[in-house]
Amino acid sequence: MTVAGAVVDLDGTVYLDGDPIDGALAGLERLASLSDGVWFVSNNPSHSPSEYVERLEDIGFETESDRILSSGAVTTEYLADAHADDDVFVIGADGLRRQLRDAGVTLCERPAAADALLASWTTEFDYDDLVAAIRVLERDVPFYGTDPDRTFPGTDGRPIPGSGAIVRSIAETTEREPDRIFGKPSEAMVKAVLDRLPGPPEEYLVIGDRVETDVALGERAGMTTVRVRTGAEASGNVTPDHVVESLGDIERVL
Amino acid sequence: MTVAGAVVDLDGTVYLDGDPIDGALAGLERLASLSDGVWFVSNNPSHSPSEYVERLEDIGFETESDRILSSGAVTTEYLADAHADDDVFVIGADGLRRQLRDAGVTLCERPAAADALLASWTTEFDYDDLVAAIRVLERDVPFYGTDPDRTFPGTDGRPIPGSGAIVRSIAETTEREPDRIFGKPSEAMVKAVLDRLPGPPEEYLVIGDRVETDVALGERAGMTTVRVRTGAEASGNVTPDHVVESLGDIERVL
Repeated sequence: MTVAGAVVDLDGTVYLDGDPIDGALAGLERLASLSDGVWFVSNNPSHSPSEYVERLEDIGFETESDRILSSGAVTTEYLADAHADDDVFVIGADGLRRQLRDAGVTLCERPAAADALLASWTTEFDYDDLVAAIRVLERDVPFYGTDPDRTFPGTDGRPIPGSGAIVRSIAETTEREPDRIFGKPSEAMVKAVLDRLPGPPEEYLVIGDRVETDVALGERAGMTTVRVRTGAEASGNVTPDHVVESLGDIERVL
Repeated sequence: MTVAGAVVDLDGTVYLDGDPIDGALAGLERLASLSDGVWFVSNNPSHSPSEYVERLEDIGFETESDRILSSGAVTTEYLADAHADDDVFVIGADGLRRQLRDAGVTLCERPAAADALLASWTTEFDYDDLVAAIRVLERDVPFYGTDPDRTFPGTDGRPIPGSGAIVRSIAETTEREPDRIFGKPSEAMVKAVLDRLPGPPEEYLVIGDRVETDVALGERAGMTTVRVRTGAEASGNVTPDHVVESLGDIERVL
């Protein structure tokens, strides 16, 4: 098999609970030596690509912002294009709002003025957000979610509610399904990945710990899928092409 | 048809936006003259039966607490029996907590100590409640909801999130379906109604504005169903036995 490059998940694959995983840097350097190098994918909607570049530099790996495909970045790219002249009501964290504003998306605070609703992770989520979501969606405007993760590991490693919990809470309250979800393994993320790969998708690896997001993304994109055992437990009904202990063992599939 | 008594919905049937509906008192008095009189059902979990007795007295109708079957009362009755020695974690309003405590149910504030989770309407609902729900339910204890109403009319008549919104938010976040929902048209409410009727259910009317809760409850209980047009728009796929304009026109089906 010719491997031209790789798309690598961050949380659970490069980092665990914020700390780099043993061997991850060596694995990334090996992948960077492939002809087309490494891209990164993440369902974290709050950190910008440049923040991820800095975090990777902290562990000694050099990359660029346009190699980072976070759910926040893919959401921002879509809204800046499809809702360039619109007012968007956001239920989400400050880091997401900042990315949207920096890309020229107009945020609004009045449900009655909103042309679209974007729901995402925020610890500030409350009853008033559900009321606002009813008010925005009773006007039948588009409804988006940054990513489908119902939970993710908090700082103590135990699960806490993610964007998916908030998106589903709004969907159930309003009996309205979201029009698009941007994170892995959505079609929007598949398209964002395929837009960046210079060659045929089967020549690229997708490497991650989560079967239902990372492996599913790779399968939908027609890439070669590799699951690492460093993060989440195996679940879901998609079978990866390869399984390795950690990113440090990636040589075994090259 | 012999009509021995009636089970009457409150919001949208007797009251609208807190005010009595024209002719409602006359209708209630006519039903009270039947051999077994009137019971009341409500999916409002926060007001106690004695509060409803007072509200009915305010419009000139005399009744007793044990004739009020609110979702809060039915929930309280169940928990006081099935969880008499347990600690219950409640996500709900003060009015519900008061009913539970008055019936001897022990409420607890620590998810790790909870033997059951009860979810209900509260404007205080927030992200921390979703975290707490994950912590309680990861211990695989019973999960209850007071009632299934996703929205109900706020003081300005526009829909605001109800218990159903909060129960479904927790169910979707934790990927755990509730074990029981107590309000109309649940089996628990059907049983609470049937336990009170002295005769065969077909001799009793159930009267309400909502097809999916009031008429559905009556149909599941084997009662004679009457929809009034004073509250919610018609929806749902259950057909009432009779339709009248308002409670004041109830003579037409007697």
